[in-house]
Amino acid sequence: MLPADTVLLLFGLVALVAEAMTAALAAGRRKMDWFGVAMLGCITALGGGSLRDVLLGHYPLLWVKHPMLLVLTGGAALLTIALAQVIHRFHALFLVLDAIGLVVFTIIGCNVALGMGHPLSIAVVAGMITGCVGGVLRDVLCNEIPLLFRSELYATVSLVTGALYVAATSYELNHVAAVVGAFVVGFAFRLLAIRYKWEMPKFIYERDGH
Amino acid sequence: MLPADTVLLLFGLVALVAEAMTAALAAGRRKMDWFGVAMLGCITALGGGSLRDVLLGHYPLLWVKHPMLLVLTGGAALLTIALAQVIHRFHALFLVLDAIGLVVFTIIGCNVALGMGHPLSIAVVAGMITGCVGGVLRDVLCNEIPLLFRSELYATVSLVTGALYVAATSYELNHVAAVVGAFVVGFAFRLLAIRYKWEMPKFIYERDGH
Amino acid sequence: MLPADTVLLLFGLVALVAEAMTAALAAGRRKMDWFGVAMLGCITALGGGSLRDVLLGHYPLLWVKHPMLLVLTGGAALLTIALAQVIHRFHALFLVLDAIGLVVFTIIGCNVALGMGHPLSIAVVAGMITGCVGGVLRDVLCNEIPLLFRSELYATVSLVTGALYVAATSYELNHVAAVVGAFVVGFAFRLLAIRYKWEMPKFIYERDGH
Repeated sequence: MLPADTVLLLFGLVALVAEAMTAALAAGRRKMDWFGVAMLGCITALGGGSLRDVLLGHYPLLWVKHPMLLVLTGGAALLTIALAQVIHRFHALFLVLDAIGLVVFTIIGCNVALGMGHPLSIAVVAGMITGCVGGVLRDVLCNEIPLLFRSELYATVSLVTGALYVAATSYELNHVAAVVGAFVVGFAFRLLAIRYKWEMPKFIYERDGH
Repeated sequence: MLPADTVLLLFGLVALVAEAMTAALAAGRRKMDWFGVAMLGCITALGGGSLRDVLLGHYPLLWVKHPMLLVLTGGAALLTIALAQVIHRFHALFLVLDAIGLVVFTIIGCNVALGMGHPLSIAVVAGMITGCVGGVLRDVLCNEIPLLFRSELYATVSLVTGALYVAATSYELNHVAAVVGAFVVGFAFRLLAIRYKWEMPKFIYERDGH
Repeated sequence: MLPADTVLLLFGLVALVAEAMTAALAAGRRKMDWFGVAMLGCITALGGGSLRDVLLGHYPLLWVKHPMLLVLTGGAALLTIALAQVIHRFHALFLVLDAIGLVVFTIIGCNVALGMGHPLSIAVVAGMITGCVGGVLRDVLCNEIPLLFRSELYATVSLVTGALYVAATSYELNHVAAVVGAFVVGFAFRLLAIRYKWEMPKFIYERDGH
């Protein structure tokens, strides 16, 4: 395994933990029980990759092959309960880890689709599904309209990261350079979007339907 | 390709656009951002066929094979934002296009299952999933109880259309006649149901659960 | 087929009916129409096994192979409408049937994963998905936070049942003994949890997110 891929994997594991922990906080806001907290952690952290694999017919799913990922993410969610009193102090850290996760999951998702021989556009979509769908599942299970559809540059960051990575790969750029380049641009873009509150314009339509 | 299938395909593309545009209006009622609008358009238009394919193990999914469909439906949803001020004038047109979509998607869904060698009853179910599930996903993502479960003859139209088409096919009726017959009956049924406000009876149960 | 498996199958069918009927009552509380009642019955009763099969890539799905299951569960849901005035008298019976379903579906789910050669931990997870996910889909479609994540020992019962069954199987215990043992322990555990209102502790987190 190349060093760049090892780093990507390590970042991915850290990001899985971070996603599970933020999902645990969302569960706590809805007064879920400990079991629900662990479940929501697993689903949020692993749901994006799972949906990608199901839609592409890419079996076995990652957590089926590596069941330890369920222990890692469920455990991280449960740990969050113990840390609830102090975790808000690490708010900035979580934003950074979440940004890393978004970018890393996107690149991994692109790689899976490219490895299956899908066209470049599908690779970008696979990256977006991997990076963004976990949060959508979390919001649906918390009975909310997905945040992804309503605010912040999140999916757009995933789109830009994936497009860059896939373009670099298709020009047969050095693999390490493609990973590092896409990562740096995507990560910086996401942090800038948070810092300066960049948002997509909203579509507001007041007429009644049906 | 037979002329009947070409017409079916054309109708299908028009219906995909119509579904994406009505989904965009639903997104606008929840003040989603432009990205959410495009996503909801794609998911509503392509979600029914995608769930059918995942449940039947029918890979690759249509939009994976033809990524242009994502551009078509996402683009139609975004175009809706520009047309928001005038689109309500075309309300009747959208009802007609939606009815065409319901019937055409149903027939296409039946065909997929029949082509895989599934029994006739599963073909009818596959048609209903293709015709109806997009709207269910739209409503779940908009945080509403699916309209499909609550009102109007919609799924029933899909059921009747699919049953007619599958029956005609199983009696080895001429393919064009089967398509045209199922289409005309289903389309007329849906328009009459809208016109005369036909509804299924409701089940109202007031006792508390749990 | 061994007698123990025949009994398991019979219990499974009874439990499918019970799940569909309780889902119908949930549909009635949201004033769904008859079609929605039948759909929610099918989805609740068959959704857990379907998600398990999709996640594991285990095709064809049970109801695709045996379409009569759709008639059975949809029919049971519709029958509930006719019985609505008297059904509350059988509340205790439904709790018992639901407990049977939870335990039986869990064991069946473990079996499917073991039969595919998955590791023991994945078999336990497959059992939990089979036993618990139907209710989650029902709650999401009724626009509620899943009860599973919020209260009662339900998923925990599934976890204990599955772990026992999988452990017994991995020690090459007699198959009948494994089924009966896991069933008795799981069933008793669930009834005791209902009787004494055992609950998991809740995680309550009041700080605002985002």
